[in-house]
Order: sequence, then structure tokens, then C-alpha cells
Amino acid sequence: METKITKDQRRVEVCYSPALFPVYYSNNDCIVVVIDVFRATSAICTAFHHGVKKIIPISTVDEARTYKSKGMLVAAERNGEVVDGFDFGNSPFNYMNPKLKGETIVLTTTNGTKAIECARAADSMIIGSFLNLDAVCEYLADKEKDVILLCAGWKDRFNMEDTLFAGAVVNQLKKNPVFKGLADSSLAADHLYELAKDDLEGFLKKTSHRNRLAKLDLEKDIAYCLQQNISKVVPIYKGNALTL
Amino acid sequence: METKITKDQRRVEVCYSPALFPVYYSNNDCIVVVIDVFRATSAICTAFHHGVKKIIPISTVDEARTYKSKGMLVAAERNGEVVDGFDFGNSPFNYMNPKLKGETIVLTTTNGTKAIECARAADSMIIGSFLNLDAVCEYLADKEKDVILLCAGWKDRFNMEDTLFAGAVVNQLKKNPVFKGLADSSLAADHLYELAKDDLEGFLKKTSHRNRLAKLDLEKDIAYCLQQNISKVVPIYKGNALTL
Repeated sequence: METKITKDQRRVEVCYSPALFPVYYSNNDCIVVVIDVFRATSAICTAFHHGVKKIIPISTVDEARTYKSKGMLVAAERNGEVVDGFDFGNSPFNYMNPKLKGETIVLTTTNGTKAIECARAADSMIIGSFLNLDAVCEYLADKEKDVILLCAGWKDRFNMEDTLFAGAVVNQLKKNPVFKGLADSSLAADHLYELAKDDLEGFLKKTSHRNRLAKLDLEKDIAYCLQQNISKVVPIYKGNALTL
Repeated sequence: METKITKDQRRVEVCYSPALFPVYYSNNDCIVVVIDVFRATSAICTAFHHGVKKIIPISTVDEARTYKSKGMLVAAERNGEVVDGFDFGNSPFNYMNPKLKGETIVLTTTNGTKAIECARAADSMIIGSFLNLDAVCEYLADKEKDVILLCAGWKDRFNMEDTLFAGAVVNQLKKNPVFKGLADSSLAADHLYELAKDDLEGFLKKTSHRNRLAKLDLEKDIAYCLQQNISKVVPIYKGNALTL
């Protein structure tokens, strides 16, 4: 019953929760884009843009403590805040420090690093955010692979900001005739992005994670993460770490 | 970190896949609306509207064969078609037969009965479709409970038609000040319904399951399932069966 799409007709699907990844991931012939706009994947792009050499994403705060005890630079965020005892969290502004140039950072966050963990089985995984939108789309267009846009969401729930970024990617890819196989999830994200694109911040005013961050006085982070194309980096996951 | 919503501020969430139900269902103080517009929940509403007394939803074709061997009326659909050897499938037109009045029907479908199975733990579960939209909204407004709109989707994937119905419910409920807690998933469904509402059939033209049904020559079913408010029935799940 499923329509077979050949490689000159590549499929684009949005997976709205890490918990659904096994449903969408059926073969290695695809690229997974991990999306956590507020703020893990925006922070990761910012780090590489400012010269960080490697990021090791990990799942638990316990693992983070082990790395920390070995003298490594460790960033740990839970529920929007830096975990006590760690060097920093997932605010992009933490990663603009010139001292981090050439460094390796270990990172654990509430949603973003969990999504990376879920997608580890994939042969090909990259990191997307509004900051590197065009670079991500160019990367996807260049490879002969299907695309899964994996939204980190909030604790496995659907969230709006990751959906809008997924929609921004679909919006560009669909102009390329090779991306013919738009799943319903991609059509939905694209429609939402079309509605939101002229005022992303306004569109997100009522959404939950935006309000969670606003309560933590992180308005500056929100505005920063919604900027488009300030970087051309495409962080790639290889051998348990992200690099360029 | 989660905002606590009191019962005079009821929460409305859309769960886009049966596989995500455990993420959204955290307590018994909610009503689950199971949605499979094309076609299981439309067929179920049609059956009750035409006098069927009870529907026993089951998960597997094997179970269906056991019921059939006991002489019961059994409907079985997989991938849009009636399974060989069964009385009928999930076309709403199968359920308009006056001979079914007062009868009990056993039913298994690709997605709809699977979603019902997933939500069995819920204290309160009802069946929604465009056919009984207003009746569902009135039912939800009357109860002092949070709402989970559970989209059956397609084999655990997001689909558009169930999303649009969820959006139609959100669109009505949000006018009632008691439904203050609109999750991001509800905001998204509402936006999509707003875009689609003046021409549901046109909006669904590019979507996957609509095209799957069109290939099976089921255009008549599609048009029927997109009619709004032709029935006031609200099928309720109790003790392993659906009744009014």
C-alpha cells in the first residue's frame, strides 16, 4: 500500500517526537536532521560557528558528572536551567567565548541531546536550527537521500518552534522537483511555517516553551535563536560526537 | 516546570499518534477522543446513527476470525480494504443497512481500533468524526475534565485528516474560557483547521491517505466522511465495547 518513492523522488517526513523516531526510521538511506530550536541545536550551531572543535552529546546528568570529574568542559541543562555544578547550559550566548575555540565540550540537555541519542542508529545525522537554515537545506539537496526532520519537542511532546523550523526546511526543499514525496507531516509543517514566517516571534507568543523560557528571563535567547542564516556551519554526528 | 492547570482551566492536547499516547496520558482526569476520520470513527458514528446497539473493537484479524466462528457479525479492514472472509470493512456505507438495527458488531481496522486499544487505560473515551463534531464538543464542554484528542494517524504516523478534525474541536472549545490550556499541538491543529475549513476536501487533495483511498475508488467515502454534524450520537467506550 505504501507508495514506493525512487531516489529521484526523495521523501521528506517530519517526525514530531523522539518517541516516534522508530516509526519513521526504516532504513539507512536517509539523513536525519535533529531540531531543538530553543535551544540545544541553536547552541550547537553557535558553538561551531565560534570555533568549538567537537561536541560530545550525552544523555544523563550522571554521565555528565563523570566527564566533569575527568576535567572536561561539560555543559548540562535541565528544564531550561544550568544544572548546579556545571560550566554552562544551553544558552547560545554561553558558546561565544573565544576561550572555547578548538575545545571539546560534553553536552546534555532536556530534549536536544535525547533526540540525538534516539537517532544514533541513523547512518547520517546533522544538526539544524534557524541559524544555519540555508546551509542545512543545501546539504540535504546535495545528498541522494530521503530526509527525516526530527523535532526534539518538549519531553516527547509536539512543540511549535521545532515544527516551524521543519516547515522552513520543507518550504525550501519542495521547490526542488526531486523532493516529491511530501508526507502529511511535512505538508502540515510547511503550512504552519507559511503562516508564521513573517513574524516568527509573534506567532510563537502563545506557545508553551517560549513562555517557559520567558519566565526564566531568556527573551534574549529566544530572539537570537529565531535569527535566520547567520552561520553556514553544518554540524555532523560521527563516531559518538558532533564535528564539522 | 509544567504549568499546573486547575479544573476551571482545562487542558486540551492533540496526540498525533497512538504510539505517543503514553506520553500524553498521565492521569485519569481526562476524556480521550479517538479520531480516525478516514474511516473507522466515521463508520462507528454512522453505525450508531443507524441503530447499531454495540460495537466491540478488537485489535487483530485472528481475534476477528474467532468471533466470526462464533457466528457474530464481524467487520475487518486492513490497508483500506475488507479482509477476505468478513462481512464488511470500515466504509460508513456498510453500516446504513436497516438489518443492523439493534445488532452487535465486532470491528477491527488498520488504525482506528488500534487507537482505541491504546487508550483503553483511560477512564473516559469517546469517538469523534466530522459527522458528530458538535455533539463531541458539547459532550467535552459538559464534563469537568482535560481533553486528549487522539489521532489514529496511519500506522503510527501523523496524518492530516485526523489533525483537521482535532483542529475543528479545538476551534470550538477555545471559545469557552474554561479551555485555557491549549498545548502547542492544539494551537497547530487549530491553525491548520482555520486554513482548511472552507474547503476540507480541496485542502486534503495532496495528502497521503486521501490518495490511498482515491486509488481504491473510495471518493464517495471521502466526501461522506467530511460532512459535518449529520448526527448527534456520541459513542462511548465502556467495559470493552462502544455504546451510546
